[in-house]
Amino acid sequence: MKEAKYTIGLDFGSDSVRALVVNVETGEEMATAVCNYPRWMKGEFCIPHDNQFRQHPLDYIEAMTDVVTRSLAEAGDDIRKNVIGIGVDTTGSTPVPVDADGTPLALKPEFAENPNAMFHLWKDHTSVKEAAEINAINADSDEDYLKYVGGIYSSEWFWAKIAHTNRQDASIRDAAYTWVEHCDWIPFLLTGGNKAEDVKRGVCAVGHKALWHKDYNGVPPKSFLTKIDSSFADFKTELLEETATADQSVGTLSEEWAAKLGLDQSVCVAVGAFDCHMGAVGGEIEPGYMSKVIGTSTCDIMVAPLEEKEHLVKGICGQVNGSVIPGMLGLEAGQSAFGDVYAWFKRLLLWPVENLSDELKEKYAEEVDSKIIPALADAAAAIEPTAKDNVSLDWMNGRRTPDANQELKGVLAGINLGTDAPRIFKSLVEATCFGARRIAERFEDEGVAIKGVIALGGVAKKSTFVMQTLSDVLQMPIKVGKSDQTCALGAAMFAATAAGRFEKVEDAMKQMGGGFDKTYEPNPARAEVYNALYKKYCELGEAVEKITMK
Amino acid sequence: MKEAKYTIGLDFGSDSVRALVVNVETGEEMATAVCNYPRWMKGEFCIPHDNQFRQHPLDYIEAMTDVVTRSLAEAGDDIRKNVIGIGVDTTGSTPVPVDADGTPLALKPEFAENPNAMFHLWKDHTSVKEAAEINAINADSDEDYLKYVGGIYSSEWFWAKIAHTNRQDASIRDAAYTWVEHCDWIPFLLTGGNKAEDVKRGVCAVGHKALWHKDYNGVPPKSFLTKIDSSFADFKTELLEETATADQSVGTLSEEWAAKLGLDQSVCVAVGAFDCHMGAVGGEIEPGYMSKVIGTSTCDIMVAPLEEKEHLVKGICGQVNGSVIPGMLGLEAGQSAFGDVYAWFKRLLLWPVENLSDELKEKYAEEVDSKIIPALADAAAAIEPTAKDNVSLDWMNGRRTPDANQELKGVLAGINLGTDAPRIFKSLVEATCFGARRIAERFEDEGVAIKGVIALGGVAKKSTFVMQTLSDVLQMPIKVGKSDQTCALGAAMFAATAAGRFEKVEDAMKQMGGGFDKTYEPNPARAEVYNALYKKYCELGEAVEKITMK
Repeated sequence: MKEAKYTIGLDFGSDSVRALVVNVETGEEMATAVCNYPRWMKGEFCIPHDNQFRQHPLDYIEAMTDVVTRSLAEAGDDIRKNVIGIGVDTTGSTPVPVDADGTPLALKPEFAENPNAMFHLWKDHTSVKEAAEINAINADSDEDYLKYVGGIYSSEWFWAKIAHTNRQDASIRDAAYTWVEHCDWIPFLLTGGNKAEDVKRGVCAVGHKALWHKDYNGVPPKSFLTKIDSSFADFKTELLEETATADQSVGTLSEEWAAKLGLDQSVCVAVGAFDCHMGAVGGEIEPGYMSKVIGTSTCDIMVAPLEEKEHLVKGICGQVNGSVIPGMLGLEAGQSAFGDVYAWFKRLLLWPVENLSDELKEKYAEEVDSKIIPALADAAAAIEPTAKDNVSLDWMNGRRTPDANQELKGVLAGINLGTDAPRIFKSLVEATCFGARRIAERFEDEGVAIKGVIALGGVAKKSTFVMQTLSDVLQMPIKVGKSDQTCALGAAMFAATAAGRFEKVEDAMKQMGGGFDKTYEPNPARAEVYNALYKKYCELGEAVEKITMK
Repeated sequence: MKEAKYTIGLDFGSDSVRALVVNVETGEEMATAVCNYPRWMKGEFCIPHDNQFRQHPLDYIEAMTDVVTRSLAEAGDDIRKNVIGIGVDTTGSTPVPVDADGTPLALKPEFAENPNAMFHLWKDHTSVKEAAEINAINADSDEDYLKYVGGIYSSEWFWAKIAHTNRQDASIRDAAYTWVEHCDWIPFLLTGGNKAEDVKRGVCAVGHKALWHKDYNGVPPKSFLTKIDSSFADFKTELLEETATADQSVGTLSEEWAAKLGLDQSVCVAVGAFDCHMGAVGGEIEPGYMSKVIGTSTCDIMVAPLEEKEHLVKGICGQVNGSVIPGMLGLEAGQSAFGDVYAWFKRLLLWPVENLSDELKEKYAEEVDSKIIPALADAAAAIEPTAKDNVSLDWMNGRRTPDANQELKGVLAGINLGTDAPRIFKSLVEATCFGARRIAERFEDEGVAIKGVIALGGVAKKSTFVMQTLSDVLQMPIKVGKSDQTCALGAAMFAATAAGRFEKVEDAMKQMGGGFDKTYEPNPARAEVYNALYKKYCELGEAVEKITMK
């Protein structure tokens, strides 16, 4: 019997990074470790009220080193010696300005404390104005450069963030050689890259966020970009021409990183991609199923066979050849807030704790803090929904899809003096599910049929109430993936493919996939009442959106 | 020096009755007592979720006996012997079905437990359907019977409540000789009335709630009433023809009640009226000032000199000659929820307490319960308002004025992930103040100028944050009455007038009025931002109302 081989999936989320060591023959998850980003957890470099969210590259370096070494220590030497690859997924669009060496500016002493020199996290919405300008410029353009990203450019994305930074901070504008997505920088770092030209650009990030398409032989031309901001005249678009899929190798570990992580230098590092795209692969996506990674927000992924003429879906985040499974069209959508909506409500209800004495505060936190969302879910589940129920809008973090509009806000409507916390929680859960339904209906309206959902992520695993409501609202079955960390598992699958263990990532999915541990079936008796409440949700949304747009 | 004389003001609120013993020469408040309605406090006969709120006549009898005897005991024998009058104010429209003796049906053994036989509290909204029918019938009628009540009949009012009861409960329909308002029944009771014909109908209740007007020589004719409900064919409209103002006497105490209360039988009992109308008098209302009794809801009163041709104000609760000051037009408006909106939010934030252990629950309640609203107010006051702030609608209990619509509901809009409890509380306070502004603007649009507000009631006395916000939103000064119980004080003023001590109630106001202890001046720097937020409030309201109306 030949010796078992292993790969490591590295999953960089919004708050923490996870390492997962996986057996490439059996899919068995041998060891895992999670580490929060230390500066981020202290709220450094962020101004939540202004929607500024930045992450320091040292947060990634320190947390990644910690989780890889800890998970390998847990796995043991026999496994450590047989690791053959590392795959990387991250949030996105989360770009950073780098110098000619490919070094993030925040790693240079003169920029160490400048938030603009750091990674601009996906949920940073400081560039709302620039995104609106890009949309206006595109509307006036002969060529529609937004047609492959759903028709609307988001403030969460690459060009809006760079344009905003260039306007705000001349020191960054002048020092940035180019900008690199988080998912592209980690493989570059691990493989010892030292020239910005050598950063391998994953098609996932560059396609979904930087408007790359083969029709344009890369990103849109300078003639378009300079209309967004004159500083783009100097932007080296040629660095974003060549792209790669995540089944390809970037190279092997540098001497420095091999030593740091306790791995052999022969370990292959795969091209990076976004978390939900790799999560969809880890969750065994297939055509006809929508993969939803449901956490603070959602990332929704579908795959479809390539057609002679690319079929366009309006109002989603984009469609990119090979962004999920190489050789298939990867379609992305998502909700700007899902679990974050419940977390907001929890924070609201816990506000009075601030007024407690220290002693009571501690006891209270202990007794209530972790129990409050399950208690709300239990109480809400006991309420039989009716068409007269109060309705909310889930736009507390704007609306990513369908039809991105980050200026929209959340609403709680239909409140009377008897509307209590469980009824509001119920309406918030329904609102997040209605948001999911609007996305599903958009795909179907545009010709991409959906027969079911594959749910992944924390909320999918933890809340039966939310998942059953989602199934009832969509009137579709929902399969919940068995693995607790499908993003990291997907990264490990790509690592195994890039390391040559499999010909295609589909083979890795078959070999390493964990299957499903639960399926929620829709309750047909609730179809009618949810149709009625969904109609109210849509009407309320339209009415509020009209006011907001004025 | 002649011996000082005293009157007792009896103020029946939604939860309790208060007695106030006042020196008629100096206005000095000699003694007071409050008593909650015992059955009401246990929630008996109410179904809050269905908006059914009923009060048992024994609640009034027991609580009134308690507060009069206790306040007189506190005042001492010298004062007790010199009491010359009792004045009565109550909530309304709060009618009760009575038999031919004028006895509320719930006081008869066969109806003792039947909520329909009790007083139907103002905030009972079970007759929403009947109110809508009255509005539709009036729209089809040649004569506009709603023009003196603002154009819209409310489910809180007399005819809607009776029609609803007659449809729901044949036993009440058959047993009711007539219906009597709470404020008319108490004087009838105290003076030993024993024939329903003898109930003196105060012009305040019958004018504002039963569509009485001198143009019709009473309430609308049978031809109109029977269109509302055929049972009104038997309604003795002649009993509602003759009316009286509160400066008139109903009679003197009956032997039974004189003995019960420890007073002389010569004590005069004045005609009753609604609490906010008497509160306006207690608060020294004058033309050009809006008197606002601000508690769970508000009752807004203005007085205007009588004109040759009565000037009509659309969308308010009504305008009645003599309902406030005899010889002047009394105009009433109000907000269905004010302090109740804050109380709703408090209940929401305290929901997690349900999940605490008993020991911690008690400690928590002790530490937080009474502090939470002041703490929210302090935190909200520290936020400088901007035109971008989140906006709410204060319709948690429907909208009484302008343009009554009890089917409207409350809304919290403009919420993002950073919107915390103080920001929501701030928006709720602003929403209640914007609701006040809509009423003030309606009066002004219809030709009744307002130069300031006289604020009375619990919220006016307790919350500087709310009062300053109200002043800033209205851009008007707000005088806060010195007395803590202006309704009871107004009742005592009417009692002194009815007892012959003063020629007109205006003289009593001059002699017995307590003046003002504080004036809030508007901050002109906030005019612009509140104009902008008010505009958003109105736009949001219009948008939501359109959906609700569909």
